Amino acid sequence: MNSLKKNTRFILDKSDVDAFLVTKSVNIAYLTGFPSEDAWFLISPKRLFYITDARYTLEVKKNLKSGIEIVEYSKSMFSTVLDLALQLKIKRLGFDEKHISVSSFQKLRKAMKRKVKLVSVGGLIEQLRMIKTGQEVRKIDKAIVLNLKCYQYLKRIIRPGMTEQEILVKLERYVKRHNAEFSFRPIIASGPNSCFPHARITTRKVRRGEPIVIDMGIDIDGYKSDLTRVFFLGKIPQSIGDVYRLVREAQRVAIQKIKPGVLISEVDQQARNFLKENKIDKFFVHSLGHGIGLEVHEVPVISLKNSSKLQEGMVFTVEPGVYFPGQFGIRVEDMVLVTSRGCKVLSK
Amino acid sequence: MNSLKKNTRFILDKSDVDAFLVTKSVNIAYLTGFPSEDAWFLISPKRLFYITDARYTLEVKKNLKSGIEIVEYSKSMFSTVLDLALQLKIKRLGFDEKHISVSSFQKLRKAMKRKVKLVSVGGLIEQLRMIKTGQEVRKIDKAIVLNLKCYQYLKRIIRPGMTEQEILVKLERYVKRHNAEFSFRPIIASGPNSCFPHARITTRKVRRGEPIVIDMGIDIDGYKSDLTRVFFLGKIPQSIGDVYRLVREAQRVAIQKIKPGVLISEVDQQARNFLKENKIDKFFVHSLGHGIGLEVHEVPVISLKNSSKLQEGMVFTVEPGVYFPGQFGIRVEDMVLVTSRGCKVLSK
Repeated sequence: MNSLKKNTRFILDKSDVDAFLVTKSVNIAYLTGFPSEDAWFLISPKRLFYITDARYTLEVKKNLKSGIEIVEYSKSMFSTVLDLALQLKIKRLGFDEKHISVSSFQKLRKAMKRKVKLVSVGGLIEQLRMIKTGQEVRKIDKAIVLNLKCYQYLKRIIRPGMTEQEILVKLERYVKRHNAEFSFRPIIASGPNSCFPHARITTRKVRRGEPIVIDMGIDIDGYKSDLTRVFFLGKIPQSIGDVYRLVREAQRVAIQKIKPGVLISEVDQQARNFLKENKIDKFFVHSLGHGIGLEVHEVPVISLKNSSKLQEGMVFTVEPGVYFPGQFGIRVEDMVLVTSRGCKVLSK
Repeated sequence: MNSLKKNTRFILDKSDVDAFLVTKSVNIAYLTGFPSEDAWFLISPKRLFYITDARYTLEVKKNLKSGIEIVEYSKSMFSTVLDLALQLKIKRLGFDEKHISVSSFQKLRKAMKRKVKLVSVGGLIEQLRMIKTGQEVRKIDKAIVLNLKCYQYLKRIIRPGMTEQEILVKLERYVKRHNAEFSFRPIIASGPNSCFPHARITTRKVRRGEPIVIDMGIDIDGYKSDLTRVFFLGKIPQSIGDVYRLVREAQRVAIQKIKPGVLISEVDQQARNFLKENKIDKFFVHSLGHGIGLEVHEVPVISLKNSSKLQEGMVFTVEPGVYFPGQFGIRVEDMVLVTSRGCKVLSK
């Protein structure tokens, strides 16, 4: 059974509906192979429909996975869904409430004219996407390899007196030379700027003896990386070096905990406990990590609140960080793959 | 009165509510000056609140317009909204149904515990954004100037035998050298690929005697451009040249029509009529244009369906295009500003 059939069957099996309407672009891309905006994907037991408008149909035909029919809508996407639903005798149509606006939902409901019941079914495709195939891990690996090369390059070129902005320009050129893109706007936060977890890049000049926190990601063929490193120029002041080693150690003890069946909250707790023993846990103001793949942030969230269990094939970041207001911040971030017996750090 | 006060007063005056909750990132950026994700902006008659989480507060403080209070939420954004609403005695809270998912809306409604009524008020901030200030036009102009420079550069470097992909790589480097970004992924569609309005870039080699349609935009400081040009290498075959001249002429007659008070639908109709007289209107499969500013596509949509009138300060694209399946396509796209007595083509 190919992945398209397997995935669409999973969605219908897991939800008490006759058909399912996929409305989020990245989910449509994941299932069908074509990342179009302005498109919906209708999954029914026997037939699959890619609904789009005239601007895209020719292009879609060239790229779509086989087994999917293309439906060009002219009047509106909403009434086209009703036409298909009536034709296929669909009574209960599933959708994901997170991926449709109140406004579109109201239009869709009106278009159904009480003939089709809309049933909210959340997060199913995200569940599929959460477990990566070997092919997906290889794509993520490609992004990581270039991301690590970027850090080696930065290590060679960062000098005292360069501004954060200048470092960004050089980094951008390096990424472009490798025909890749950032997966998000990088963070380059030097000295006191590093106390902002999401610092914006400034024209501040980097200096000796201060941390430079660089958080960046690469996107190759839609798959993303996201890694953070701390750079130092010259000698590291003892107080900063101590914090850096504690954060690294918090990351290490958390990673040690990772294997299938372990509660996700426990992985976050592990890092937090370690920082607590060292009295800096209250400066760790975010969760430990996040799933990553077609999106930079996806499930699973690695936080205290997540009471589900680790599964083989999950890929996520592990990124403890502490931020001392007005002084400095330290964060280290790596990416791991949950394997059958533990985990593999992909960004070594 | 500063623009923050004027804009927030407009929103409350135009809607029958005590306060308004802004949930869309680009609208929050427009009003407050800070483009954060994971934030909401609460407008009440006397006080303004930027609601965000601990990761952003320090950074937000440095950048926000004065007159806005920052509220850090810990438990949830939803319950923080209730706390503020109770404190301010808000009974009717406006929101935009287009910019909140069904899922977030349900959580918000639940959090209000029947103490605050949520009132759907659509498109008000988009209405504000639709009319550009002089400062905004200057920012858009900057993007256009670089966009036009890109086209001059492409004219110099495109040679037969280069692939679409190679042209993209050179174009990307050129944009980076000017410290700018694309506002969307460019379209570079040569020969038969040009018959797709939204063609994806391929490794096809460009040849003499065929059209190369290039549609690209620049983003500088959040403001966008979006222009399309057709390149020819060597002699243009008569049939293609004829179509090119008709499309240019359709654009010209549409632009001539533009001035405050004219129905927007008439501008689209004008171009369509001209193509109809020349029997190629059925290959014009999209609307004539779209507003542009902080987003590449914003109101007003320039289409047959839009029965509102042109207003001074609107900025939009005028982009007729015809697409002959399997053969070729031609589109030209410029950007105009509606002035007091007519319009100014910004991309000349």
